[in-house]
Amino acid sequence: MSDILNSAGSVHSLLQSIKQGDTRILSRCISWVENESGKYLDILQSLDLDQFSKNVIGITGPPGAGKSTLIDALAGNLLGQGGKKIAIICIDPSSPFHAGALLGDRIRMSKWFTHPDVYIRSLASRGNAGGLNPKVIEITDLLKAARFDYIIIETVGVGQNEVEVASIADSTVVVLTPESGDDIQAMKSGLMEIADIFVVNKSDHPEADNLLRHLENAVMYSKKEIPLVKTIASQGVGVETLSQIIVRDLNSNKDSEKRYRLIAEKTYQLVLQKKMRSIDKQALLDKIKEGIRIENFNMYRFVEDF
Amino acid sequence: MSDILNSAGSVHSLLQSIKQGDTRILSRCISWVENESGKYLDILQSLDLDQFSKNVIGITGPPGAGKSTLIDALAGNLLGQGGKKIAIICIDPSSPFHAGALLGDRIRMSKWFTHPDVYIRSLASRGNAGGLNPKVIEITDLLKAARFDYIIIETVGVGQNEVEVASIADSTVVVLTPESGDDIQAMKSGLMEIADIFVVNKSDHPEADNLLRHLENAVMYSKKEIPLVKTIASQGVGVETLSQIIVRDLNSNKDSEKRYRLIAEKTYQLVLQKKMRSIDKQALLDKIKEGIRIENFNMYRFVEDF
Repeated sequence: MSDILNSAGSVHSLLQSIKQGDTRILSRCISWVENESGKYLDILQSLDLDQFSKNVIGITGPPGAGKSTLIDALAGNLLGQGGKKIAIICIDPSSPFHAGALLGDRIRMSKWFTHPDVYIRSLASRGNAGGLNPKVIEITDLLKAARFDYIIIETVGVGQNEVEVASIADSTVVVLTPESGDDIQAMKSGLMEIADIFVVNKSDHPEADNLLRHLENAVMYSKKEIPLVKTIASQGVGVETLSQIIVRDLNSNKDSEKRYRLIAEKTYQLVLQKKMRSIDKQALLDKIKEGIRIENFNMYRFVEDF
Repeated sequence: MSDILNSAGSVHSLLQSIKQGDTRILSRCISWVENESGKYLDILQSLDLDQFSKNVIGITGPPGAGKSTLIDALAGNLLGQGGKKIAIICIDPSSPFHAGALLGDRIRMSKWFTHPDVYIRSLASRGNAGGLNPKVIEITDLLKAARFDYIIIETVGVGQNEVEVASIADSTVVVLTPESGDDIQAMKSGLMEIADIFVVNKSDHPEADNLLRHLENAVMYSKKEIPLVKTIASQGVGVETLSQIIVRDLNSNKDSEKRYRLIAEKTYQLVLQKKMRSIDKQALLDKIKEGIRIENFNMYRFVEDF
């Protein structure tokens, strides 16, 4: 392993190892991408991807909706099909108020953590609005190169940023629960746009039917058909049905124009990131600090020069 | 009002009205800034600000810490000093999961909502990571031009983005409560950096002393002195003390080098925003869409051209 990771001109070998299922090398490459270190750019530029494969499943919803439990159950069902490899990416908000610990626990809790056909990786959202890690596009592409049959991306909440789970996922599952006490009216419009599938989890809760009726009503007014699935993830109830509906959604003949849009949006984000990196922050800060010492410094006039 | 807002060459009149306390015109200008419409840029570029005034108080902490109640009590105390004008900015996360409604309620709940010397405005965080509205820098400058004696900015949580409340506020108050059940260990480092003052609210809670001990211990290892204040905001307990400590902190001779850094950081953010706006997104998207149709399209190679 160290040979491949250190020697020159080995990008081809690295990609070969990733394709053959070497998860240690995959993990290392993901870390490179996260930190923009090592051969990360060479690797990404050498990827030979089918932009039209559909195997990324986004799972999102408010905290406490039972997303992790549902994903555990879903992974079990997909593995039961035989011969399938599954990658699970958990993205947690990074904030001093709920940092590292929580995330680590969740990962360790998954019963698939040591399964040879399951790869689990946690990423911090790094303050990114859509609840996504800023490198999730690149990391998803690495997982595609590693030939996972299904890539599940779990995020908390739904941001309004352009990079959100719905723009990465081929099928977006929004998990809700009667317990979360959300104002359905308030969230309707945003969720209708991103959801390909709705799950009402903890559907044995007394308020579940109420939530379900609200959603059915909302779906009626939606431009697209959005299946509604009732689950009790902790007991495996409804998981088989959900699994079938997800696979059907992935295989459906979705508008390829939408597909183009998603890839274009991804590429646009990369251009933005590149532009931002192109600013020499320290030089700029030094120049600004000089400017501030001038009386009546007005930053809005100052930035006109850039 | 409509004359001033519509006629040409009236930026000077607008600023005069704002300085004289016309809150309708202030509100309109804030909306212009939020939407980048109207005369927003002219107004900002015409501001003649003392970059070294210190009157912005940041109040942050996890949801449920009682920040709004504390701000209500604090505003009462500051008004009691006589002749003071106070602006309160509430920034709420914008997400389909907890949207508009919540925010509106909070604003309406404030007993100062109709007080002539209090100006309250709510802003959505617009998916911005640090829990701040992307235009909060500009809006704070407008409030400074409107000659408020104190500008209180309330945010939920603490992001890791460069624009966070601590970079806008002259004094940052971090409000914690034993109820929030945060892992103190996990959040210590981030909070120590941003906090100028700690508040343990709901200090009659049985676990309050425990939280207090944790914080005292953490503060001991901090590079700076951070006062710790116990409050029961709902009963006004500790609010007088907190108010005095905040005013003392605002008036303290803080390192002016830090002050330069904050303004530089603000200006840097403006440059970033300007760069991002400079990209013609639609033209770029069109170009990308052409690229995608080529076989083996690789976006990481594609963006090299930008």
